[in-house]
Amino acid sequence: MADPRFFRAAGPFTLAELARAGGATLGEGADPDRRFHDVAALDDAGPDDVSFLDNKRYVENFRRSRAGACVVEPAYADAAPAGMALLLSETPYRAYALIAQAYYPEPKPDGRRHPSASIDPTAVVGEGTQIDAGVVVGPAAEIGPNCHIGPNVVVAAGVTIGERTKVGANAFLSYCRIGRHCELHAGVCIGNRGFGFAMDPEGFVDVPQLGRVIVEDNVEIGANSTVDRGAGPDTVIGAGSKIDNMVQIGHNVRLGRGCVLVAQSGIAGSTKLEDFVVAAAQSGVAGHLTLGKGAKIAAKAGVMRDVPAGQSVAGTPAMPIREFFRLVSLWQRQGKSKGKNDG
Amino acid sequence: MADPRFFRAAGPFTLAELARAGGATLGEGADPDRRFHDVAALDDAGPDDVSFLDNKRYVENFRRSRAGACVVEPAYADAAPAGMALLLSETPYRAYALIAQAYYPEPKPDGRRHPSASIDPTAVVGEGTQIDAGVVVGPAAEIGPNCHIGPNVVVAAGVTIGERTKVGANAFLSYCRIGRHCELHAGVCIGNRGFGFAMDPEGFVDVPQLGRVIVEDNVEIGANSTVDRGAGPDTVIGAGSKIDNMVQIGHNVRLGRGCVLVAQSGIAGSTKLEDFVVAAAQSGVAGHLTLGKGAKIAAKAGVMRDVPAGQSVAGTPAMPIREFFRLVSLWQRQGKSKGKNDG
Amino acid sequence: MADPRFFRAAGPFTLAELARAGGATLGEGADPDRRFHDVAALDDAGPDDVSFLDNKRYVENFRRSRAGACVVEPAYADAAPAGMALLLSETPYRAYALIAQAYYPEPKPDGRRHPSASIDPTAVVGEGTQIDAGVVVGPAAEIGPNCHIGPNVVVAAGVTIGERTKVGANAFLSYCRIGRHCELHAGVCIGNRGFGFAMDPEGFVDVPQLGRVIVEDNVEIGANSTVDRGAGPDTVIGAGSKIDNMVQIGHNVRLGRGCVLVAQSGIAGSTKLEDFVVAAAQSGVAGHLTLGKGAKIAAKAGVMRDVPAGQSVAGTPAMPIREFFRLVSLWQRQGKSKGKNDG
Repeated sequence: MADPRFFRAAGPFTLAELARAGGATLGEGADPDRRFHDVAALDDAGPDDVSFLDNKRYVENFRRSRAGACVVEPAYADAAPAGMALLLSETPYRAYALIAQAYYPEPKPDGRRHPSASIDPTAVVGEGTQIDAGVVVGPAAEIGPNCHIGPNVVVAAGVTIGERTKVGANAFLSYCRIGRHCELHAGVCIGNRGFGFAMDPEGFVDVPQLGRVIVEDNVEIGANSTVDRGAGPDTVIGAGSKIDNMVQIGHNVRLGRGCVLVAQSGIAGSTKLEDFVVAAAQSGVAGHLTLGKGAKIAAKAGVMRDVPAGQSVAGTPAMPIREFFRLVSLWQRQGKSKGKNDG
Repeated sequence: MADPRFFRAAGPFTLAELARAGGATLGEGADPDRRFHDVAALDDAGPDDVSFLDNKRYVENFRRSRAGACVVEPAYADAAPAGMALLLSETPYRAYALIAQAYYPEPKPDGRRHPSASIDPTAVVGEGTQIDAGVVVGPAAEIGPNCHIGPNVVVAAGVTIGERTKVGANAFLSYCRIGRHCELHAGVCIGNRGFGFAMDPEGFVDVPQLGRVIVEDNVEIGANSTVDRGAGPDTVIGAGSKIDNMVQIGHNVRLGRGCVLVAQSGIAGSTKLEDFVVAAAQSGVAGHLTLGKGAKIAAKAGVMRDVPAGQSVAGTPAMPIREFFRLVSLWQRQGKSKGKNDG
Repeated sequence: MADPRFFRAAGPFTLAELARAGGATLGEGADPDRRFHDVAALDDAGPDDVSFLDNKRYVENFRRSRAGACVVEPAYADAAPAGMALLLSETPYRAYALIAQAYYPEPKPDGRRHPSASIDPTAVVGEGTQIDAGVVVGPAAEIGPNCHIGPNVVVAAGVTIGERTKVGANAFLSYCRIGRHCELHAGVCIGNRGFGFAMDPEGFVDVPQLGRVIVEDNVEIGANSTVDRGAGPDTVIGAGSKIDNMVQIGHNVRLGRGCVLVAQSGIAGSTKLEDFVVAAAQSGVAGHLTLGKGAKIAAKAGVMRDVPAGQSVAGTPAMPIREFFRLVSLWQRQGKSKGKNDG
């Protein structure tokens, strides 16, 4: 059960209500009126809890689970222990997510403005928006309704934030327009001057960075990530994109819709990601490239050329993933070899 | 045109004034008295704007550009569309940078101290320095004249900051001396205890870190970067060095003048970089090494040995870049091969 | 000598006192009553200073050192310059650490609460705990005695912090229980929502992250590092673990006792590290893996499979380190080759 210091469960919900919430169907013999009080992991769940099986690594945990109900693919139904009520879904993780959201809805902003916040008189703050202690809002900033601006956040001059957006503690927003229903986590720095300068016999000459950062609706950006503003054109984070912790996005980068950038990855300046590109953890993409729709970059890959739509690449410099793994199997034999191939 | 919510252009300037600002010469037939109102990217520029061509990837954009004037190398002059006034320079990006600075000079600090700032009575703050909301300045700290200390910045006890230095929101400065005309971006953490401890049967024994961080003049450090203080000797960032976002610099590291460390790179403890070393994005350098003057580390490279002056290295472990790319071409053939080389 | 702006040395101490503090024995002919005033690096030390030799790279500096006393392995005693008093230890770095701690003990919290701090009336703050300017402490948070909470730190609702723990400036703690005598450095973000979501035709569905972060006793976490809370189970950082700057730890990760994660490394979700695992700088470990007790991950390695206890791995994908270096020597020959192996 989730620690009540931090979480409070709604419910209880009947199995029928849970099936509706998760878009799942009841397994054979399941009682639609049976009530469940919480969600829990397979190993921790008890008879009043709903759990899920999404990763076949955990089938044994599923067989042993004491969960009263479980969301599972029909294919695994036979592995269920006796007495477990099943919620069947072809997308069990999605179904579980929706059910868990029913038990643990996002807290609503309380609409209060902490007296220690410094809000410029020319700034506009919408109805129902919560402004926590130590927040600083600059001149002409506009924060929409029902937002939550966490403690010690700095919203610089002119920044706009759409409705229902949440900004985590100590984040810094400058030179940007943030969309609706975004979540920017603690320590995020947006709108920093891009790393743009020209060489000079006497040193470097800074190039004024005159673009903005446009964060479209429903974007999430993880803790301590950095997004630099454009040099002239804007840096754009497409609607629904998910960015993890400590991700670096350079000036003029354009992300399409639904891109996923995993922790510690980085995209260099002026590179374009089309819709639904995935860059795995610690991967890097050089500047001035285009990654086609649905391209997938493996963890730690270093991308030095354009990637066609739908292609998966790995390695540094990145190559098609099948070529990379063929190479890896060759390396592994060479690494094991007693030197006979070393000549 | 730059968003007026965030930027306001000076000017207009005549072509002659722009040529002077950028150290460029007028192209054939250009009217020195023609006035221009702003800078813009090739694709966005109109007849009142000045643009630039620096990267040959964009020659086609140059041919199509509606910019009234453009900074360009003489070699590309013939590709200019009819009616475009040319500003000729062998270093067009530098010339553009200087012209853009004329239109968008750095804002001056306003000299105000926000009432919510906590400034220790024993701290000294120079004339004309701007201290924003929520700033905390510790005992005996000394901040020079005409600095800008952004919102919620923490300047710890004893820290010194030279004139005209800018510190971004939520930055933390401790155990350091910061030079003149530096820019430390949001979320930077300077002077953290180095990662120094000794093993012990009962655990680890911390080694007191008794050095400082010395940041010389005209240094830029990017958002959320971290610089640890020395263990005994100091950690030193040489004058004019440019450090990008999320760069880690370990204890006792010494950077020479004009070094460039690109995003997410890291330099381990006690390594020395001579003048003008470049470490590209996501590269890493092991501890106790020396990188000679002008050495270049490729993106993602992992450097395990000293690098001679002027040498470029790539790969992990890093090797001379020509060797690395020979190896890459071999790998690519092996990766593509149907297995005939796999034996 | 350490800069008096930042550090003040205790002492002086006699050689006998230093030997006792460091668990070292006096070298032949050393005067136990001779007093020393400070610690210093070999090159900087003078006759009143104590230094140490730990790394054989620096034997020549040892021979030349003017240090009055030096901690050294017996094996190097003969290399000592005339007149240098020796403190002999098989673990000289550890002995030096303990001696340096005698000269520079950790400053004690001053027990004051800065008036600008916002402490919720339902929060509990222990005796002797120092709360600096701009700190925000949420409802029902519990901070133990003799802690130091640095400027602008945010301690969110319900968080508990054990006695003698230090939290650096601008850190953010949420959904967590922090142990005793921990040190969390500036800019750390703990308890962020894990990167958990399900795919959906209309976009992504967030999975409520209902676990916590449990940081056991004597843990150090470096500047700007991020630790996500569990999805259901907790994320756990084992007692005595040392985490460097800009390290990412994903949801449900479990670190055993005494693990060491060096700068810019990352551990993906649900991976388990048993006791005393070391992950070097910029290494990465994929999700749902187990690294056995004492496993060592080389810098920049990318771990895609379980690693047995005690094994050292390197490369991406990671392989046993001996295999990796055999491969590297092969690569280096191939890289140098004029192409004869390229067919």
